[in-house]
Amino acid sequence: MAAKSLDGKACAENVEANLKERISSLKSKGVNPHLVVIIVGEDPASKIYVGAKERACERLGIVSTRHSLSANASEIELRDLLSKLNADDAVHGILVQSPLPDDLDELSLTDMIDPNKDVDGFHPVNLGRLVQGRMDGHLPCTPAGVMRMLEWANVDLTGKRAVVIGRSRIVGMPLSLMLAAKGSNATVSIVHSRTENIESHCQQADVLIAAVGVAGLVKNNWVKNGAVVIDVGVNRVEDTSRERGWSLAGDVDPDVSEVASILSPVPGGVGPMTIAMLMSNTVNAAEKLSR
Amino acid sequence: MAAKSLDGKACAENVEANLKERISSLKSKGVNPHLVVIIVGEDPASKIYVGAKERACERLGIVSTRHSLSANASEIELRDLLSKLNADDAVHGILVQSPLPDDLDELSLTDMIDPNKDVDGFHPVNLGRLVQGRMDGHLPCTPAGVMRMLEWANVDLTGKRAVVIGRSRIVGMPLSLMLAAKGSNATVSIVHSRTENIESHCQQADVLIAAVGVAGLVKNNWVKNGAVVIDVGVNRVEDTSRERGWSLAGDVDPDVSEVASILSPVPGGVGPMTIAMLMSNTVNAAEKLSR
Repeated sequence: MAAKSLDGKACAENVEANLKERISSLKSKGVNPHLVVIIVGEDPASKIYVGAKERACERLGIVSTRHSLSANASEIELRDLLSKLNADDAVHGILVQSPLPDDLDELSLTDMIDPNKDVDGFHPVNLGRLVQGRMDGHLPCTPAGVMRMLEWANVDLTGKRAVVIGRSRIVGMPLSLMLAAKGSNATVSIVHSRTENIESHCQQADVLIAAVGVAGLVKNNWVKNGAVVIDVGVNRVEDTSRERGWSLAGDVDPDVSEVASILSPVPGGVGPMTIAMLMSNTVNAAEKLSR
Repeated sequence: MAAKSLDGKACAENVEANLKERISSLKSKGVNPHLVVIIVGEDPASKIYVGAKERACERLGIVSTRHSLSANASEIELRDLLSKLNADDAVHGILVQSPLPDDLDELSLTDMIDPNKDVDGFHPVNLGRLVQGRMDGHLPCTPAGVMRMLEWANVDLTGKRAVVIGRSRIVGMPLSLMLAAKGSNATVSIVHSRTENIESHCQQADVLIAAVGVAGLVKNNWVKNGAVVIDVGVNRVEDTSRERGWSLAGDVDPDVSEVASILSPVPGGVGPMTIAMLMSNTVNAAEKLSR
């Protein structure tokens, strides 16, 4: 029997419907939620992501401003811009689109963003709160989106074995903390490129989350019958049937739908949820900062 | 065959010997490393811990100052004190001894400490750096002590299965991040009170770390033959053979030494290492802040 597809788009629409009410309440008090996106250089994928974020803002009535800097922008230039945005009361959310050109230090620039305006949830203050079990700061968008999808699908995590493939600061590490935290209560294993016999870990998972960036890594014989599988991978694979020459593939082989009970697809799963959680953080920031 | 005992005291002495050189180098530049400890109320165990920290300072030539506040000290009083200490250039390390009286919010007071002076490594900025894989901030002392002991005992973690029992913000969560990080490369599972069949997870561990606060929880049939076992538990158990009526017991049953290859004992294992890492953070802080 084919797995139920976890429809991230529908879940995101549900999140956005709730945000719309809060946004109109903010506007009635004269507060216009405002997200600023900084993009450096001409990376085509970055432009696509930023465009999707701007369209979400437009859909919801959030003001968005894009600062496009040239690929040879200096760190000082970026720091000056961040300082101004931190100090600007009309700005509630700031994000620096990843990746940055190699000569810019992404982490030290993230450190500079006011944690209250860090709507990506990448600042150490926001990540550190996850270690402390405090879930009321800005949660990193992709892990928060995964958690919300699991909740939406009524997956009770208590006592379940969750296996997270990948130990990135953006997804794997924070998601592992969120899954293991009080309230979620999953038993969590973090596996990665240096793990021996990775499939034996995956085979024990009730909930399997792939966030490693290797197209089709997770095969159907890696997955326990009836497991919930969340695919966070976004990989470009050659596809000569398409004019553009590539298509998107997740970290999970589509055949996994033969054994999983629930599978979130790529595209259409976690992707829309990441954007919805960014919108959610922006509204949270506008509410907190305008109090 | 009995497990080799992992001598935390000897490892701590090794750490301290290295610190002594760095402290005399600081002093030759006119910098006197200085740790301030704040203790609120009359908790006898807290006084014992603070005393041990002060003796370590004395041993190494680190200046220590104790601020003893009454059990009904207000949050404002503590916040004022922390502000003054943050601003005082002659102070390099600040720690608030846990536990605080119930009416004081430990986390929000920790938030107030300058992360550069947070030598406990409990501030979200320092914990968040662990999520990012940055190991150059103030590391929380007990997890850092465990990592140092494993290194000292030449335990290569790459590809090994590490199981951490307990998900506290002080030990379990940060230690899991450190074990899984690049450089350590362990495959990490976090198990806790809501984990089903906890012993089956422990039985698969090459490295088992118990940090849960239940005396003798880990029995020898929970441990794989030849595993490395680190006992972080510090529990008082009734002991009528002693005048004081209690003795210290770890989370690991002493019989585990029959199956483990290496076992860190309680007392004498992680305890001295926690203090050594506090001294190490204080020296790091003095070096960084005096640059």
